[in-house]
Amino acid sequence: MKQETINRIRKFSEDRDWDQFHSPANIAKSIVIEAAELLECFQWDDNEYDIGHVREELADVIVYCQNMLDKLGLDADEIVNMKMAQNEEKYPVEKAKGSAAKYDQL
Amino acid sequence: MKQETINRIRKFSEDRDWDQFHSPANIAKSIVIEAAELLECFQWDDNEYDIGHVREELADVIVYCQNMLDKLGLDADEIVNMKMAQNEEKYPVEKAKGSAAKYDQL
Amino acid sequence: MKQETINRIRKFSEDRDWDQFHSPANIAKSIVIEAAELLECFQWDDNEYDIGHVREELADVIVYCQNMLDKLGLDADEIVNMKMAQNEEKYPVEKAKGSAAKYDQL
Amino acid sequence: MKQETINRIRKFSEDRDWDQFHSPANIAKSIVIEAAELLECFQWDDNEYDIGHVREELADVIVYCQNMLDKLGLDADEIVNMKMAQNEEKYPVEKAKGSAAKYDQL
Repeated sequence: MKQETINRIRKFSEDRDWDQFHSPANIAKSIVIEAAELLECFQWDDNEYDIGHVREELADVIVYCQNMLDKLGLDADEIVNMKMAQNEEKYPVEKAKGSAAKYDQL
Repeated sequence: MKQETINRIRKFSEDRDWDQFHSPANIAKSIVIEAAELLECFQWDDNEYDIGHVREELADVIVYCQNMLDKLGLDADEIVNMKMAQNEEKYPVEKAKGSAAKYDQL
Repeated sequence: MKQETINRIRKFSEDRDWDQFHSPANIAKSIVIEAAELLECFQWDDNEYDIGHVREELADVIVYCQNMLDKLGLDADEIVNMKMAQNEEKYPVEKAKGSAAKYDQL
Repeated sequence: MKQETINRIRKFSEDRDWDQFHSPANIAKSIVIEAAELLECFQWDDNEYDIGHVREELADVIVYCQNMLDKLGLDADEIVNMKMAQNEEKYPVEKAKGSAAKYDQL
């Protein structure tokens, strides 16, 4: 996201004095709660979904992920690149191509 | 995230021909699954957590969020700004300051 | 479940002195975590699943639900009947038959 | 639960012709969704919760667990006893007593 968007997320919590509620554990709960609301868009049908609703719920997940990064002083690029390096090793192209199997079953 | 990091996420799936598994519904399931693994870091204790594990699981959530954005052709800044505008209206500073109450109970 | 099964669940925690970890909030986290592991059985395919794995993860969810009932002194029959009465009212047969719509959209 | 309660759950779905929506994958999604609503009762505070709300959300989780058992022809006592036997082996009393560590770290 752009720095401007990240700043808006931060200012929103600061203005409301919400840092006191944003323990890492509470943010982790919040990410699951919003992720489940996103899943609810697909509860009974995988293909018919309300894109407006999906946009809102996905945004909620992303906002709480940013809250978690901020709370723990983490950098999104750093942790994602670290994880992608792991994933690239766990799922070698020649084994994983076209397969949905978990790495320990490849 | 930087464009370079986003490109790495995209290339990872493309190289493995995984787009076939990445229906919006399956990605929504995956976001919840990874969010629950993140929550597991705080399952029995809110304050003692393995930061290395938290970094990995948070990265997984962020990667699947990017997969969802890509799958649906959404822009993170656009949907987050749209949602923050809603949040700012639902939680006016003078009412929400210092309160964890839901907007319909403010 | 039979009283004998419920007793086995209770004895398991008592023998290990785990009541100290079983706050309602921690059990709620645990139910979500196990529910997400159950969902993982269906992550990439709705129809091909490992029934042995499904049995285990569903059992985990049920065990933590029993832990929650015990912790809060609730009776499964009582709360389920209370909720079914609500559901029967919210989803009248003539409106809800054959429809997956939420009650506020019927 | 009593057979009468289980029958009420079954009749509710049958009367509404909802079996068509109750694929195992959709029920798994529903269990996570309701489990996350239960967790929402504890989102910002582990100790202050609305017991009426907790009762409702826990009931929802239990109802969907029963739907899953029915859909797959499983018996709650059988799968729970099978899982408890595993748990008893994975968490020997002498090692696990008073510890919240996962079995692979005992």
